[in-house]
Amino acid sequence: MNPADHQNESIGCLAICGVGLIGGSIARAARSRGVVSEVIGIGKNQARLQKAVEQGVIDRGSTEPESAAAQADLIIICTPVDLIASQVAQMLPHMRDSATITDAGSVKGEIVRELQAEGIDASQYVPGHPLAGSDKTGFEFADPDLFEKATIVLTPTAETADIHTRRVRTFWQALGGNVLTMQPEEHDSVLAMTSHLPHLVAAALAAAVQEDHLRLASSGFRDSTRIAAGDPELWTSIFRQNAAATLAAAREFQEKLTHLITAIEQDNADELKALLAEGKCRRDAWREQRLRLES
Amino acid sequence: MNPADHQNESIGCLAICGVGLIGGSIARAARSRGVVSEVIGIGKNQARLQKAVEQGVIDRGSTEPESAAAQADLIIICTPVDLIASQVAQMLPHMRDSATITDAGSVKGEIVRELQAEGIDASQYVPGHPLAGSDKTGFEFADPDLFEKATIVLTPTAETADIHTRRVRTFWQALGGNVLTMQPEEHDSVLAMTSHLPHLVAAALAAAVQEDHLRLASSGFRDSTRIAAGDPELWTSIFRQNAAATLAAAREFQEKLTHLITAIEQDNADELKALLAEGKCRRDAWREQRLRLES
Repeated sequence: MNPADHQNESIGCLAICGVGLIGGSIARAARSRGVVSEVIGIGKNQARLQKAVEQGVIDRGSTEPESAAAQADLIIICTPVDLIASQVAQMLPHMRDSATITDAGSVKGEIVRELQAEGIDASQYVPGHPLAGSDKTGFEFADPDLFEKATIVLTPTAETADIHTRRVRTFWQALGGNVLTMQPEEHDSVLAMTSHLPHLVAAALAAAVQEDHLRLASSGFRDSTRIAAGDPELWTSIFRQNAAATLAAAREFQEKLTHLITAIEQDNADELKALLAEGKCRRDAWREQRLRLES
Repeated sequence: MNPADHQNESIGCLAICGVGLIGGSIARAARSRGVVSEVIGIGKNQARLQKAVEQGVIDRGSTEPESAAAQADLIIICTPVDLIASQVAQMLPHMRDSATITDAGSVKGEIVRELQAEGIDASQYVPGHPLAGSDKTGFEFADPDLFEKATIVLTPTAETADIHTRRVRTFWQALGGNVLTMQPEEHDSVLAMTSHLPHLVAAALAAAVQEDHLRLASSGFRDSTRIAAGDPELWTSIFRQNAAATLAAAREFQEKLTHLITAIEQDNADELKALLAEGKCRRDAWREQRLRLES
């Protein structure tokens, strides 16, 4: 089969390990677009899986990852980042030779290094990260349009076979995503700045406010701290897996903040205005870029 | 006339000095709710005022503040914070004895101190701050419902006559606001934490990202940096007028952030999770409080 045939081939059975907000959204998106013939949800909690079936999120649930892996054409691991490498390692020996496995973890380098350190043949694994999410948790909030116009990063390694990268790219494109590929380390260093650091800062901002002052917090506080409502356990894993890059991003942020603070201390209006204009310029550039992507 | 009569009395002529996003929204809100019989917009640019008339934001424009002040029952100063004290001082001598003047500035203490230092009789002035806004500027974005369920802070001083405070309170309530009163210094110290610091942090976050990394910035970046798109000149004035409280808030934030950074450096999962949970807890408390206020 040549690559072109593979791209046009529809994915038969999709197995999603971890049917939460992201896993549930992928399931709903793939089912509603007719991209797959069946979605198996893999989890530990039979009752939760049953509820996901009843709510039309997945076709059926399985608490046996290895047997589900053997039936799937595409597996997506949507569990917290510190579990992904071991779950990929658990699935691989049971997968068909033609099957593909990918994930939705927010950190990529550590997963790749862990699999390499274990000496696992990971040619069927395509490290991935859909840049979409919510501060909510649970498949009850699953959104079939979550990946429309979203950026999806794939970080194939030298080991990853091209045919699997192409399949995962085609899958995400069918869900409406814009797919980019880059090195795992590049992904982690950029995401530290654009996602992990903002979360750390939002948590510090929210925690710094006294509870009885919250009544004087309005839309600025609402937006600047929204992501602080995310799951502390999930985010602890993300920070631990991407510690070095997050710390480097935090240093750059602190340097910018110190400049702003110094300008206020010195009552240096020109400097303060120039620094605020730099932030505005970058934020405006982001917005223009998004409008272009979404048009 | 006793206070109850005054509360039921409708405001005749409203003059708004500075017909931008906030001034324009007040004008639209007051007109659409029938709270006033006429809205005069005071500004420097005749063409802009004419456009505001054409768009139905105000009834008429005036480039002569003193003559407009003489006709108004209520004046609201909606200009940048560093201009407010001098504009209040300019209006007062021309106002009728029964007329009231208030403002919409984000900082209160400095305005009050400036008027006191000038020895101005400010019994008709009610310092105010509607906690509502946008990162957009201009009356084109004016929203007649901007103050629905919004918190409005009034900071009357010992000098302010009660009758004027009551009139401004009644006005904001008619626009849908929840009115609180407190000391100017308390307002400034709380707002430094809930509004001014988040703006400073958002600017630093946005400025820290390299332009070519913006394509990997998603909804977390969007929300945590939204307010960085605000007008640098406006915010320079706010930070300068509320420098001491903003610097104190920044120190508390930096302490929280340093704790988080140290927990990552030390790979202390329990500590990291506890600190993130503290941020989440405060953010969730804010959301519950808003839902109660809005229900």
